[in-house]
Amino acid sequence: MASVTVRSSSHDYEVLIGKGLRHNLVEFISSGYTSILVITDSTVKDHYLQDVKESLSEATPVFTAVVPAGESSKSMVRYEELLDSCVDVKLDRKSLIIALGGGMIGDLAGFVASTYLRGIDYIQMPTTILAHDSSVGGKVAINHPKGKNLIGSFYHPVKVIYDIETMETLPESEIRSGYGEVIKHAFLSDEDWAHRLLKGKLSELSVKQLESDIMKGIQVKASIVEKDEREAGIRKYLNLGHTLAHAIEAELGYGEITHGEAVAVGLLFMMKLSNELKGAQLPIQAYKEWLDDNNYPVSVLTRIRPDRMLERMMLDKKTLRRKINFVLLHELSDPYVVEIEEAQLLEQMSLLINEVSGE
Amino acid sequence: MASVTVRSSSHDYEVLIGKGLRHNLVEFISSGYTSILVITDSTVKDHYLQDVKESLSEATPVFTAVVPAGESSKSMVRYEELLDSCVDVKLDRKSLIIALGGGMIGDLAGFVASTYLRGIDYIQMPTTILAHDSSVGGKVAINHPKGKNLIGSFYHPVKVIYDIETMETLPESEIRSGYGEVIKHAFLSDEDWAHRLLKGKLSELSVKQLESDIMKGIQVKASIVEKDEREAGIRKYLNLGHTLAHAIEAELGYGEITHGEAVAVGLLFMMKLSNELKGAQLPIQAYKEWLDDNNYPVSVLTRIRPDRMLERMMLDKKTLRRKINFVLLHELSDPYVVEIEEAQLLEQMSLLINEVSGE
Repeated sequence: MASVTVRSSSHDYEVLIGKGLRHNLVEFISSGYTSILVITDSTVKDHYLQDVKESLSEATPVFTAVVPAGESSKSMVRYEELLDSCVDVKLDRKSLIIALGGGMIGDLAGFVASTYLRGIDYIQMPTTILAHDSSVGGKVAINHPKGKNLIGSFYHPVKVIYDIETMETLPESEIRSGYGEVIKHAFLSDEDWAHRLLKGKLSELSVKQLESDIMKGIQVKASIVEKDEREAGIRKYLNLGHTLAHAIEAELGYGEITHGEAVAVGLLFMMKLSNELKGAQLPIQAYKEWLDDNNYPVSVLTRIRPDRMLERMMLDKKTLRRKINFVLLHELSDPYVVEIEEAQLLEQMSLLINEVSGE
Repeated sequence: MASVTVRSSSHDYEVLIGKGLRHNLVEFISSGYTSILVITDSTVKDHYLQDVKESLSEATPVFTAVVPAGESSKSMVRYEELLDSCVDVKLDRKSLIIALGGGMIGDLAGFVASTYLRGIDYIQMPTTILAHDSSVGGKVAINHPKGKNLIGSFYHPVKVIYDIETMETLPESEIRSGYGEVIKHAFLSDEDWAHRLLKGKLSELSVKQLESDIMKGIQVKASIVEKDEREAGIRKYLNLGHTLAHAIEAELGYGEITHGEAVAVGLLFMMKLSNELKGAQLPIQAYKEWLDDNNYPVSVLTRIRPDRMLERMMLDKKTLRRKINFVLLHELSDPYVVEIEEAQLLEQMSLLINEVSGE
């Protein structure tokens, strides 16, 4: 088992990563809780809920709440239902919520924990690769019909327990989604790591490499959020690829493509902007090939309209006075934030769409 | 103009108290905001919204959102509507929310501010005496059908601007409600002040005394919350009278009696418990007379059932392992927290109900 300690303004917390951790929860979870509510989704439930319940202390009452799988559950309706569940099972201030699932569950259950009785403890138990990103850093949220994560808080878990075995049941699309954020973390931090990833195929991934990539990703994320918890400065770098990704997800409807796939496509646009507008020499051709080799849905670009994307980016919370800030790269591992004019964005987006369409 | 500085874990903020402050907002509010949303209720709107809008800088776009007056607006439905308003007028991370109104508006608008884009700045502009309590300390919340303030956050305003002139339009019931919390602050902190209040009649209150009472109340509140922001210890003292008050409000339906009136009745029960069970000698007779003289609705006690009150107190967030903690007084200005058995609570509540019924 490996571990990383994350420092936050309210408290420090540990991220534990290892095989089969879900079978030994009693070792990692304080016995002082009056009750525990495990929040999970309809897919994860069938795989791991029983294991988790069995490995918690018999001395503590354990309740469960299950929401439908998929990003569309990160909604006001599910948020309200879960708060009702907290009230119904009488969670008190010394109760614990466990978020068992991917990023959707972590964000949703974390937001419930942050606002029930003005905040009770919660533990993240990520079951996807993608969630290596969202489970660290304290951002919890639900979506609004007009934008992703528009409603939420900054609220840190008391622990993150990452059972690497739960990655073994992931479908190909989820591995692809997770590596959208993994490669972002590599682009942000480590040129060698990035090139190594670009040379590999996800279908040939070993468990050992997966574990190492997740650990490295968490370290990148943790080191940035520790320095800038509330996104006043460098935390913005973590939005690399996300400005377009959020707009695509909102436009297509959440759940149409996965978040990490959208990020992977957003990173392509980031490379385009960095190279064309700012003279960088990022390996866009190698990245395009990697996206193709691993079946990333780059073709979604042919289904979007640049003007509508622009309107959605305006609403994005990183927007200030209707100008659009982008995170770009001078080179791999060297990010910066820059304001880009609407006309240039429209032009580069059209060019990229044409390239992808094969024109 | 008087001012008090409140220290919080995230930032310090000023409470400004004075006459006519609403006409000079441009002096007190940073000019750096991209836009401002004033959230108020249907009653306050008619009195003060125009003044507030006129005194804000013309350089900043100002939007307004109005909810129906009354505690029933502290609901999930209004919360959602207000978040929609924030999205519709495109508030961004550099926007400001102004909560113009009583405690309901402060709690509701503060909760919106705390969760829109994971938290944007807000300013409290209390227009009631009662709100001298809720506007300081960072507790923001909405109600759940099963309990008051069950959903919320700890989130501090960037400023509190208390225009004492806005108290002049308050109906008698609102003055009574406000003094429920004022006398609580006196009971908690200052025997002389408490006795002085008990000797006075609210109908004969001077503006000067009102200003002084509000200032003293805010100082008591601020000094306690600074030492214990998240209610781990002494902040619990502020719940003096509130355990029964919340149960009464929930039982009768929010809005049936005002919060401060419920607190005033809860304080009577607190005195009864302190004297009968713990041998204190609090001036319960003088307090009863003060309640009668000032038309507090003590008779609500004849409309409640002790067993149902007990069930509701169990749900109260101060409850742990189904035991009920009460804040009592050894003597005036000397509070403590103690666990009280269900049987004793039922007995003392029945006794008090009988006394009030005149049996």
